[in-house]
Amino acid sequence: MNFELLILGTGSATPVLNRHPSAFLLCIENESFLIDCGEGTQYRLLEHKVKSTRIRHIFISHLHGDHYFGLIGLLSSWNLNQRKESVTIFAPRGLAEILTIQFKHSDTKINFKINFVETDTENIHSILDTNLVSVETIPLHHRIPCCGFLFRSKASKRKILAEKLPENFPIPYIKMLKDGLDISDEFSGEVFLNKDFTTTGSVSKSFAYCSDTAYNELKINQLQNVDAIYHEATFTESELKRAQQTNHSTARQAATIAKKINANQLIIGHYSSRYKILDAHLSESIEVFANTFLAEEGKTYKI
Amino acid sequence: MNFELLILGTGSATPVLNRHPSAFLLCIENESFLIDCGEGTQYRLLEHKVKSTRIRHIFISHLHGDHYFGLIGLLSSWNLNQRKESVTIFAPRGLAEILTIQFKHSDTKINFKINFVETDTENIHSILDTNLVSVETIPLHHRIPCCGFLFRSKASKRKILAEKLPENFPIPYIKMLKDGLDISDEFSGEVFLNKDFTTTGSVSKSFAYCSDTAYNELKINQLQNVDAIYHEATFTESELKRAQQTNHSTARQAATIAKKINANQLIIGHYSSRYKILDAHLSESIEVFANTFLAEEGKTYKI
Repeated sequence: MNFELLILGTGSATPVLNRHPSAFLLCIENESFLIDCGEGTQYRLLEHKVKSTRIRHIFISHLHGDHYFGLIGLLSSWNLNQRKESVTIFAPRGLAEILTIQFKHSDTKINFKINFVETDTENIHSILDTNLVSVETIPLHHRIPCCGFLFRSKASKRKILAEKLPENFPIPYIKMLKDGLDISDEFSGEVFLNKDFTTTGSVSKSFAYCSDTAYNELKINQLQNVDAIYHEATFTESELKRAQQTNHSTARQAATIAKKINANQLIIGHYSSRYKILDAHLSESIEVFANTFLAEEGKTYKI
Repeated sequence: MNFELLILGTGSATPVLNRHPSAFLLCIENESFLIDCGEGTQYRLLEHKVKSTRIRHIFISHLHGDHYFGLIGLLSSWNLNQRKESVTIFAPRGLAEILTIQFKHSDTKINFKINFVETDTENIHSILDTNLVSVETIPLHHRIPCCGFLFRSKASKRKILAEKLPENFPIPYIKMLKDGLDISDEFSGEVFLNKDFTTTGSVSKSFAYCSDTAYNELKINQLQNVDAIYHEATFTESELKRAQQTNHSTARQAATIAKKINANQLIIGHYSSRYKILDAHLSESIEVFANTFLAEEGKTYKI
C-alpha cells in the first residue's frame, strides 16, 4: 500500500525566504490528505503537480495563520478551476466563519460542496472512517485550541494469485479466499488451501501529526507503536525556556515523545526562523531517538 | 525626487507558478505605498529587502482574493516582528471585518495601530493628503466595488544653494528664498536675488493605478496628463468578449485609455494565466500607445 508524506512547508510563524509555512500531503493509495495549509500552499501544490481532485479532506490543526492562511486562496482557485468534487474540512471552531465572510465580500459562490467539521481539540475523537483510512484527533497543548491527527490506513484482505486459480473458479470461492478461508468443494470433493492461492494483503500503517504543541505526555498511550510521527521541533534545547513560554517543543522533546510511543520513524519540522542550519536539531533528536529525519520541503517520506 | 514603482505581482486570479498575484510598491522619497497585497506579498517584500517601517499606507483596490489574501499574513508578521508604527489601510467595506475576525480566532492582539479607511469606489474621493503626496480614488468598473488610486507627489519649494549664502544668513530670509522671493535687507540695503541663491525644487509627479476594470472612459478627465498609468490588461483583443464578460480589459483597451489621458508612460499587467508569452500584449498596446512597458516582477520603473 502506498502510504507517504510529502512535505510542503517546514517553517514556523515568522516568515523566512527559504522555508514555507506548515503544509503536508499524506498520500494513501489514490487519496491525498492535506494537513495544514499555510500561506502559499496552493503554489506548493502546483510546484509538485498534485492533482487537486485527489484531495477530498483537509485537516487544520489550529487557527494560527502559518497553519491556515493559504486555505482561502486554495479554495478560491479550485472554484475558479471549476472543481466539482466536494471537500471536507476538519478544523477548530471559527474557520467556517472566516471563510464564509471572505466569500461573501468577494461575491463568490463556491460551486463545490464544502463540509465543515468542527474538531474537538480537547479529547481523542474519531473524525473520519472510510474503507481506506480512519482518522482521530490528538489533543495538543498550545496557546489556542489545537489538535493533531492520527491516520491509520485499513489493512486489506488477502490478495488472490489469479494465475494460480483454475478456470471458471466460482466468485463466492474467491471471496472466501480473500477472507483467508480454505475451501472444500461439496460436489467434486476438491480442496483449495488458502495458502496456495493467496498472498498477504497490505498491512495497516499509521501516521501521527503533532504540530503545534508544548511537550506533553498525554498522547503517549494514544500513539503507541505508530509507524511514523511528525512532531514539531520549533527550537533546540538551548531555547528550552522560549519553547515553554510559547507552547512549542524542542527537538529533544520531540524525540522523547517518539521514543516513549515506540514509533518507528520521527520527522521533525516547524523550525524557528532563527535557525539557518539544522544540525543541532538533528543531533539532539538522534541522541534520544535514532531514526529521526529532518523535514525537508519537496521531499517525500515513505512510511 | 525619487518616485518609482516596484512590481511584486503580475498575475491575475488563477494561480500560475511563474507569476504572483497583484502587489505593487510605489516609493516616493523615503515612503513606500503598498498597492494591493495578493497571497505571498510578504515573501516578495522579503525578497526585495523592503523595510516594512517605510510602509505606512496600504491601498486595496477591491476584495477579490488575488488583491488582498496576503494582507492578513503581512500584518500578522509585522506584529510578530514587534512593529510599532501605525498603518492606514484604504479598502472597500468588508476588509476590517475580515481581518478582525481572523485576529479574534487566533487570539492575536495587534500591537500597532491599524486605521481602516473605507473607500468610496463610486466617486472620485480624496483619501490622503500629506506634505509628500495626495491620493484620490479612481472609480473603476468591476464585478464588485473596486477603485484605483491616483497618486500625486507634491512639488517641493525652491532648493537653497547653501554654498552661495553669506555666513550667518538669517533663517527668515532662507524661508523667503525657498518660497521664491527676492530679499531686500532694510538695514544694509543689500539685495539678494532669488535666482542667485536657489535652484528649482522637485516637480510634482503623478501615477494612476487602475486594476481591475472593464474598459471605461469615465476616468479620462480625472487622469489627464499623468506621468504614468498602470492599467490592467488581463487579455489581448482576441479575447475581447471574455474581457467584457469578466469586467477586465485588453491590452489595446489599456493603451487606448493611456492615449486618451495623454499619459507619458503605460505599464500593463494582471495577465491571465492563459498567456505564457506576452508579445501580443505588448505589440497591440504599442500600436495605440508607443510608450508601453510590460510589468515584470522584481523590476523597478522610474516615473
